[in-house]
Amino acid sequence: MDFLQDYWLKPDPADPRLSVAVTGRDEAGEAIETRVTVERPLTLFLNAREIVTMMTIGDYPEYLALGYLLNQNMLTPETPVTGIDYDDDLGVVVVRTETETNFEEKLKKRTQTSGCAQGTIFGDLMDVIENARLPATPLKTSWLYALTHKINQTPSLYLESGAIHGCILAEADKPRVYLEDVGRHNAVDKIAGYMHQHGISSENKIFYTTGRLTSEMVIKTVRMGIPVLVSRSGFTAWGVELARKAGLTLIGRARGKRFVVLAGDDRLIYDQDLAYVQDESAKHRRKGSHTEEAAE
Amino acid sequence: MDFLQDYWLKPDPADPRLSVAVTGRDEAGEAIETRVTVERPLTLFLNAREIVTMMTIGDYPEYLALGYLLNQNMLTPETPVTGIDYDDDLGVVVVRTETETNFEEKLKKRTQTSGCAQGTIFGDLMDVIENARLPATPLKTSWLYALTHKINQTPSLYLESGAIHGCILAEADKPRVYLEDVGRHNAVDKIAGYMHQHGISSENKIFYTTGRLTSEMVIKTVRMGIPVLVSRSGFTAWGVELARKAGLTLIGRARGKRFVVLAGDDRLIYDQDLAYVQDESAKHRRKGSHTEEAAE
Repeated sequence: MDFLQDYWLKPDPADPRLSVAVTGRDEAGEAIETRVTVERPLTLFLNAREIVTMMTIGDYPEYLALGYLLNQNMLTPETPVTGIDYDDDLGVVVVRTETETNFEEKLKKRTQTSGCAQGTIFGDLMDVIENARLPATPLKTSWLYALTHKINQTPSLYLESGAIHGCILAEADKPRVYLEDVGRHNAVDKIAGYMHQHGISSENKIFYTTGRLTSEMVIKTVRMGIPVLVSRSGFTAWGVELARKAGLTLIGRARGKRFVVLAGDDRLIYDQDLAYVQDESAKHRRKGSHTEEAAE
Repeated sequence: MDFLQDYWLKPDPADPRLSVAVTGRDEAGEAIETRVTVERPLTLFLNAREIVTMMTIGDYPEYLALGYLLNQNMLTPETPVTGIDYDDDLGVVVVRTETETNFEEKLKKRTQTSGCAQGTIFGDLMDVIENARLPATPLKTSWLYALTHKINQTPSLYLESGAIHGCILAEADKPRVYLEDVGRHNAVDKIAGYMHQHGISSENKIFYTTGRLTSEMVIKTVRMGIPVLVSRSGFTAWGVELARKAGLTLIGRARGKRFVVLAGDDRLIYDQDLAYVQDESAKHRRKGSHTEEAAE
């Protein structure tokens, strides 16, 4: 499993904090023991302001906090972050900036009129699509098959206990960062937080997700500057429309030999001889597994 | 397909507003046409206060609005609702009550200190578990198999275009209300709105979802007063813990012959001879379908 060396960060399903053993009964009424994924609340603060409480497996609260704020446009990549403080006992993470952010000013104005600032945030996110300048990085189809093969062989909570979503950041046929969480949006945000923290360029990257290709998923990928988004799952019409507007390559229903490209197909180089790719069949899934569900 | 008569409400996948045809390319680079599910933003107001903007397929904005407010404890079942006004052009739905709700008072206090009222809502939802009194209605395992068989044969957007979640409210072996949406929580909330609007009792009901059995899912089911929750998907540890606290029967990883009960197994009557139930196999899924994903 040489390819495991390609990873900069990957799941640690053996981490005892991330899953627990529970007892129950099966379909015949027999007692069984199984493992289930842990989720715990994490409350995010931006300076003094409480932003949201999220359910998370709790492995990378700092990446999650940073990525959430970036992907919600509550923080810009240029804003100096002076600290990220996580308190495990309280389940609280605070992201601190030097000066008050634009978002906090907007929020002050909004709350005097109507409570949450959902409308404001939403408008800003549409700008992300309008202003998108994604690189023309080519995508070889052989990379897609190599990647899914490697991802499916990488130990993960998804393979161990199920009920979880995963996102993988890759370069060509090499998976680099694989992060999971109970919420598919958390997994996406963790990747964004990691990239920002470590100054990772988005230009030559492929973003693979177990979640569906909705408008929200497309907006986040575009904001992160990644030119290719791939999923096993399906699309929504608006996800497709936004991807086309932003010039994102959008590939869904990617299973075994098959996939569908509904935006940005001009990046693709069809270099894979499909005779050498196996169709997905029941044989290739683990017996009695719960891994088939890309949950949430 | 006599069982289709048992439904009080079921999906209408032929409704042209719910999906669109799009063109793209397949894995061989060949041009194809396919259908994808529509999603559009819906902004919910409670009286004069903007609450949230949700992405929805847009078929039942009134049920969604009502159910959302009930499931978030922003509205109690006893509060008289004087009107629900939906404006299709603006993508806005307003739920009106006679007097200002408790939630609106709390929100006023909260916004003066820290923006959104997420923490307050969260605390109230925990009370739902503490105060749960779910009925001891028995559950025959034969019903579970009959239900999944019927649900899998019911025309739906899930079977047509994928990338969607569905929830079904059932009585014994009869499915009654089947509602879908791009967000699994929307599908749950629509069911709650329907039940409230039509005065449907929860006591003898089974709640089936394509989504995972997380804490949020369990809390909503308990708030809705339904004693049994079933899913194809997996569990989270906290979902299991809350289900046990509340006395909810929690059944997951329900596929073909198999399922796992991790809470409330005392309601089960194992009356199904498992020799007569088929294992789930590739043969039983539609060819080339995207229906395997319980998305989101």
